[in-house]
Amino acid sequence: MTEYFNEIKKIQYEGSDSKDDFSFKFYNPEQIVLGKTMKEHLPFAMAWWHNLCNCGTDIFGTGTADKTFGAVPGTMEHARAKVDVGFEMMEKLGIEYFCFHDADLVPEAADIKETNRRLDEITDYILEKMKETGIKCMWGTANLTNNPRYMSGAASSNSADVFCFAAAQVKKTLDLTVKLGGKGYVFWGGREGYETLLNTDVKFEQENIANLMRMAVEYGRKIGFTGDFYIEPKPKEPMKHQYDFDAATAIGFLRQYGLDKDFKLNIEANHATLAGHTFQHDLRISAINGMLGSIDANQGDLFLGWDTDHFSSDVYETTLCMYEVLKAGGLTGGLNFDAKQRRQSNTKEDMFLAFILAMDTFALGLLKAAKIIEDGRIDNFIKEKYKSYENGIGAEIVAKKVKLEALSAYAENLGAPALPGSGRQEMLESILNTILFG
Amino acid sequence: MTEYFNEIKKIQYEGSDSKDDFSFKFYNPEQIVLGKTMKEHLPFAMAWWHNLCNCGTDIFGTGTADKTFGAVPGTMEHARAKVDVGFEMMEKLGIEYFCFHDADLVPEAADIKETNRRLDEITDYILEKMKETGIKCMWGTANLTNNPRYMSGAASSNSADVFCFAAAQVKKTLDLTVKLGGKGYVFWGGREGYETLLNTDVKFEQENIANLMRMAVEYGRKIGFTGDFYIEPKPKEPMKHQYDFDAATAIGFLRQYGLDKDFKLNIEANHATLAGHTFQHDLRISAINGMLGSIDANQGDLFLGWDTDHFSSDVYETTLCMYEVLKAGGLTGGLNFDAKQRRQSNTKEDMFLAFILAMDTFALGLLKAAKIIEDGRIDNFIKEKYKSYENGIGAEIVAKKVKLEALSAYAENLGAPALPGSGRQEMLESILNTILFG
Amino acid sequence: MTEYFNEIKKIQYEGSDSKDDFSFKFYNPEQIVLGKTMKEHLPFAMAWWHNLCNCGTDIFGTGTADKTFGAVPGTMEHARAKVDVGFEMMEKLGIEYFCFHDADLVPEAADIKETNRRLDEITDYILEKMKETGIKCMWGTANLTNNPRYMSGAASSNSADVFCFAAAQVKKTLDLTVKLGGKGYVFWGGREGYETLLNTDVKFEQENIANLMRMAVEYGRKIGFTGDFYIEPKPKEPMKHQYDFDAATAIGFLRQYGLDKDFKLNIEANHATLAGHTFQHDLRISAINGMLGSIDANQGDLFLGWDTDHFSSDVYETTLCMYEVLKAGGLTGGLNFDAKQRRQSNTKEDMFLAFILAMDTFALGLLKAAKIIEDGRIDNFIKEKYKSYENGIGAEIVAKKVKLEALSAYAENLGAPALPGSGRQEMLESILNTILFG
Amino acid sequence: MTEYFNEIKKIQYEGSDSKDDFSFKFYNPEQIVLGKTMKEHLPFAMAWWHNLCNCGTDIFGTGTADKTFGAVPGTMEHARAKVDVGFEMMEKLGIEYFCFHDADLVPEAADIKETNRRLDEITDYILEKMKETGIKCMWGTANLTNNPRYMSGAASSNSADVFCFAAAQVKKTLDLTVKLGGKGYVFWGGREGYETLLNTDVKFEQENIANLMRMAVEYGRKIGFTGDFYIEPKPKEPMKHQYDFDAATAIGFLRQYGLDKDFKLNIEANHATLAGHTFQHDLRISAINGMLGSIDANQGDLFLGWDTDHFSSDVYETTLCMYEVLKAGGLTGGLNFDAKQRRQSNTKEDMFLAFILAMDTFALGLLKAAKIIEDGRIDNFIKEKYKSYENGIGAEIVAKKVKLEALSAYAENLGAPALPGSGRQEMLESILNTILFG
Repeated sequence: MTEYFNEIKKIQYEGSDSKDDFSFKFYNPEQIVLGKTMKEHLPFAMAWWHNLCNCGTDIFGTGTADKTFGAVPGTMEHARAKVDVGFEMMEKLGIEYFCFHDADLVPEAADIKETNRRLDEITDYILEKMKETGIKCMWGTANLTNNPRYMSGAASSNSADVFCFAAAQVKKTLDLTVKLGGKGYVFWGGREGYETLLNTDVKFEQENIANLMRMAVEYGRKIGFTGDFYIEPKPKEPMKHQYDFDAATAIGFLRQYGLDKDFKLNIEANHATLAGHTFQHDLRISAINGMLGSIDANQGDLFLGWDTDHFSSDVYETTLCMYEVLKAGGLTGGLNFDAKQRRQSNTKEDMFLAFILAMDTFALGLLKAAKIIEDGRIDNFIKEKYKSYENGIGAEIVAKKVKLEALSAYAENLGAPALPGSGRQEMLESILNTILFG
Repeated sequence: MTEYFNEIKKIQYEGSDSKDDFSFKFYNPEQIVLGKTMKEHLPFAMAWWHNLCNCGTDIFGTGTADKTFGAVPGTMEHARAKVDVGFEMMEKLGIEYFCFHDADLVPEAADIKETNRRLDEITDYILEKMKETGIKCMWGTANLTNNPRYMSGAASSNSADVFCFAAAQVKKTLDLTVKLGGKGYVFWGGREGYETLLNTDVKFEQENIANLMRMAVEYGRKIGFTGDFYIEPKPKEPMKHQYDFDAATAIGFLRQYGLDKDFKLNIEANHATLAGHTFQHDLRISAINGMLGSIDANQGDLFLGWDTDHFSSDVYETTLCMYEVLKAGGLTGGLNFDAKQRRQSNTKEDMFLAFILAMDTFALGLLKAAKIIEDGRIDNFIKEKYKSYENGIGAEIVAKKVKLEALSAYAENLGAPALPGSGRQEMLESILNTILFG
Repeated sequence: MTEYFNEIKKIQYEGSDSKDDFSFKFYNPEQIVLGKTMKEHLPFAMAWWHNLCNCGTDIFGTGTADKTFGAVPGTMEHARAKVDVGFEMMEKLGIEYFCFHDADLVPEAADIKETNRRLDEITDYILEKMKETGIKCMWGTANLTNNPRYMSGAASSNSADVFCFAAAQVKKTLDLTVKLGGKGYVFWGGREGYETLLNTDVKFEQENIANLMRMAVEYGRKIGFTGDFYIEPKPKEPMKHQYDFDAATAIGFLRQYGLDKDFKLNIEANHATLAGHTFQHDLRISAINGMLGSIDANQGDLFLGWDTDHFSSDVYETTLCMYEVLKAGGLTGGLNFDAKQRRQSNTKEDMFLAFILAMDTFALGLLKAAKIIEDGRIDNFIKEKYKSYENGIGAEIVAKKVKLEALSAYAENLGAPALPGSGRQEMLESILNTILFG
Repeated sequence: MTEYFNEIKKIQYEGSDSKDDFSFKFYNPEQIVLGKTMKEHLPFAMAWWHNLCNCGTDIFGTGTADKTFGAVPGTMEHARAKVDVGFEMMEKLGIEYFCFHDADLVPEAADIKETNRRLDEITDYILEKMKETGIKCMWGTANLTNNPRYMSGAASSNSADVFCFAAAQVKKTLDLTVKLGGKGYVFWGGREGYETLLNTDVKFEQENIANLMRMAVEYGRKIGFTGDFYIEPKPKEPMKHQYDFDAATAIGFLRQYGLDKDFKLNIEANHATLAGHTFQHDLRISAINGMLGSIDANQGDLFLGWDTDHFSSDVYETTLCMYEVLKAGGLTGGLNFDAKQRRQSNTKEDMFLAFILAMDTFALGLLKAAKIIEDGRIDNFIKEKYKSYENGIGAEIVAKKVKLEALSAYAENLGAPALPGSGRQEMLESILNTILFG
């Protein structure tokens, strides 16, 4: 292992005389919850980009955290140092998966052939580490946003040459994902959208995006990739409008272009909220369409209009997330911490403190979600609420056995219906609080 | 005609010594634009509810405008007075269409049979007026939001009895729409959504909504309705989340349930903006999916988080709207002024001043949009922008003749692509301003 | 007491076999927290308007809850029935205060003299009830928003006659507040703002508002009112822009017009969030300016752009609220439930379930806030964080003993400073979760 | 002059056969408007940072525009190249002012003394250029956001050493501003705010900010700076909450700390809209408080939650801006283009096209605003609207001669007032459109 974290004797909560040691307070990987271990319920992944590449840069300031790891950025030595530190962190934290972009792994060369050679080299090294540690690849993805060539889109670019480079990156990243045994492959279309309709042919661009996805499926299946493809919806940022706006939009797109058999969704909390939905909403929409595949586990700030990508701390949100996941029977992917430390949390210790926060917050979410299900009151309330559809005219409606004329006659016969029962939202919120804090 | 507006000698713009007379400054119905008259391009409709029913009530205050029209509200006499005043206004303004909810036309009775009888009576009277004046019905819709019985939804209600009442209203309103020769029938699902997932089965509710729509199509076609059905998307308000969130969501829903042959969309400006889109965006998404049917022509306020439904005043917005409409080859419905006077604009004169504002604003929009098309620079810019797909590797991509491997080889051969050309957004915005103000 | 709630045998949480009885789970009025009873820390008030007047009307639908209480709305009998039911609820719930608008108490008459006579009559009756029960008045306020006469403002109206009516209502409500022994008097300027600057003289309107407040202070002090006046900030709704936008704006206004000695703020959670601030932010800004007077205790929905005024359910939010209150040494007013049941929560039982939710949520907030303070880690962290100002150059800065030249010389001598220490936000969020859920 | 722009023969609007030459369509510097030349009304400034430093980087991608100007970034040669290109652009465009941060001018050295030496050197060179061209400095400001040392604030930092560095930068930049004859000095507190109240002492931080401003005033006046100091409000980004939230907040702060004699505001369009206000609102609030000093002339996107800083294209917005400026009697500063080209507008030509867009848009705004004033209808409407305060009870209210008792008696005597007159918003919007498009 590296000696990078050696100076950290223990991770401490500061501010009290008796400082606490590094520890999870709620995450206990082997604890059984609803018949499975916590770590089975919570297949956490480290995101290469945020943890090993991001230094806290924002649009008004340069990096505050040192992520050189003893090497010179832009070198293959640095690429290897990131592998070392990444695996050390995952081991120390008990994280079993990682996710990556091609561009996270090595410095991009001027020529794509050289970039690809570097990718081959570093993934050989990663494979070794995986064998040593048992850590696995959750999913890979191609970074089609950072390079200036993608300024007007990747698959949606107006330049056919740029489309080819996007295709080449997707091909290579699929190759690498298969090489590393990844469970999934993600498309996040950060530049697939538009700034102004004054210069954009939306229809043409959307068809080209579908085109690249279709080719990726064809190629992936050919080289033996059996996992899920995922779209990760996000409404905007960096573009004014991105085509994969939210779960409903992405699902409609996948069905329109016949991609729904091979694709599911990777739902990110902060992306859902930027689209004006709760995290739980986009999880639910995905789940009821059979499309809940994987999760980018982070948290946004509803007072801010950009993607803050913070580590989750809100137990209400993780509880409702895990409730959806449990109800959906789990994920085909996992919970990827697409999350960065706050810019002011710039020390090595903060790297751990942030993961501890989020892993504990999801562990609490799992425990509380399981308790909601075991408690049964909320599920029963919902079941009872719709019981008028279990027989009589309700059952006929559901069975599609009646026509408008018959329903109208039924209504005329009734004259006026009773009000539906109370929605009891406050009672249900009390039940939730009792479960969370009782 | 009524004598309601008799006291208004002329509509004046106050504030100057020489007051201007009532007049359109830009709307000239017989003016030829791109080969058709302005009034053919702009099939305006008066919305019964806002113009004849709304008194300026808001959540913090009672009505400021008197819409009794000399009769006692809640009586059939008042219902007829509204018909009289409505037709007088349409004639005075040269508006050729109206749109209505069942609930706008008559006071709802305790028993649905009596309500329906009243609807028969008033529509007989409306038919007379239509014959006298040549004014036509654009579309009808059932009000499935106002009555407390719909508090937890209409087609999505947990009460099967309530579903039947929704069905009965839809049937009756379809009957009336056919009777009045309406071109379309609209579903706006203001209560079809949820307040909290703690008490909601989203999948069940969505299937029931599709169920009612399917029955409506079946019945409508049976009774000879040949027009379009429309969904009017809106993301929220009154519900926290409404299922017909935006154009993309509604289109996905229609396709999922096989309703896309009979349905198009009725796009409302203020609903699009509440969903986080520009008005133009939702028009474009509808158009490229062959779903741009009709428009609720109003304007929201991006600083406010609710549906202000104001009369349009922004010529940028109407220009880009009419550009989309012209490009799409027109509407199957029209431009319905789903717009209310400001609460402080509470006089009879304001009823006209508001329509004059909006009709002039759309007339300007039409004139400017035609000028954009005639000018050609913007359209040509877009055409040029994508020309790399017209031959070579680009043409092969579009023709779906190439695989990922070939594109990757092409990219490797190239090494690195040139940047795509500048998006020239500022230049295009200058061209737009030159057209608008030149 | 009334028999209104007799049919409610017990308040139950539905959905489980063994239904729970009516009960607080966390609120225990006599429990000692940091040396005072819970009820001393939490001076709850019932808001007359929401609890006794609001029926669940929204902009798209009529009321769902029956608040006739066995009488005919619009009569003095109904006014008395509201008193009976209100006091019964407060007693049953153990709520010791109420807040009121003049317009909540009696139906407004066509002539202000008759309205005032009715107010005298009903407050006699309320006084009796107060003596019987020991329940007290927290604050009164005049409703200067609902009547159409206030359509363009009350104190900010362009009509001097309307200004006089606002003044008359303020005078009468001050009289009543003193008669009922109210601790405070509130101004919420719901119509004091503008829709468009095209018709508004902001400066003139703001001076008139200050004018009315000045007169109210003068009159109030003359008749023996010794309590606080409060401004309740809200940024918008019903107006596009309201002058009392947020705490900082209101404080600046009070200082500018010399009203800061007599006024404090009444901070509402949902108003703070509509202004783009957290609830805690506006509490903090008020507190550090010595202006934290009272709280409208409710909760908004950050996904919705209007004032939802729901009963609080989020324990994070109430914890951080009570932390501010404890740090500020308490309130001069109290915690007024300016909150309405959800429109779908339309039964008598829901009236209790909603209060139980909110009272329990604030009780949890108090317990957790006290635990934060006792724990000390967060407070200590903050104290430690700024310690560089305790001596040396830092102490000189704070003491205002140094000039720019000296600081510049100090910096030049240093060459480059060390980074400030980590902000440790994730650690602090973990501590918070440990306190909330540990 | 440089040869940098030599290859640009003419700036063309592409997309049409007959390409237009480089030219302003509406900006005509010597044209007389309301008795002054256009360029006197519109003292435009180039912002060093956006025009000469910004390459189109965003949080998801590296730069797309080449701003090396033939030199190696990070060298003094590059610093001089920026001066050359900047002055060439200003001359070509007829822009008479520039604005700068210290950090824009030279690469920051590891030691502040060396940085300051570089600043001396480059400003010598800039002074030469100023003499040659007649171009002037509008204002200077210190960049207290970019360096990691400012991660937790500059004047609000928890590190006294960091405070000293902020002070040193302010001192030096004041020196440079005086050396270059700048008309003003700006504070934009991009890091003066907080991420979470869990680690922040707001009161302490605000006092320290006031402290630094007080020292800056004292020092500035001592060295002969006679211009205005400005605060530039912005509510958030990069921080979750920034203390100078909006105009009202900043004005309250300046008065609280006795800084209002020396400070005015620099209002930025996109900052106002991020705070939930229209641009015009923050201009008006500044103006009626005698605090409208200067303007950062750009445009935001109300659909996006971050500072897009685009060049202005909306003539409604510039018209209402210039209307406020004309009414306020002009600015003490000017119109600084704190605006960047779109990331996809990455060519040298786009540098000009963007300025042409914005200068034309402000020229149109000026012309239309002058027309509003000459037309008089809007101003007269406002004047008429408040006339009830010109005599009788209204005049007494304004003169502060009446008490609540007298107003109440007046109201009681009246019984009920007439409604105030219609607000006529739609009419006024029609008048505006007639002026803009007539």
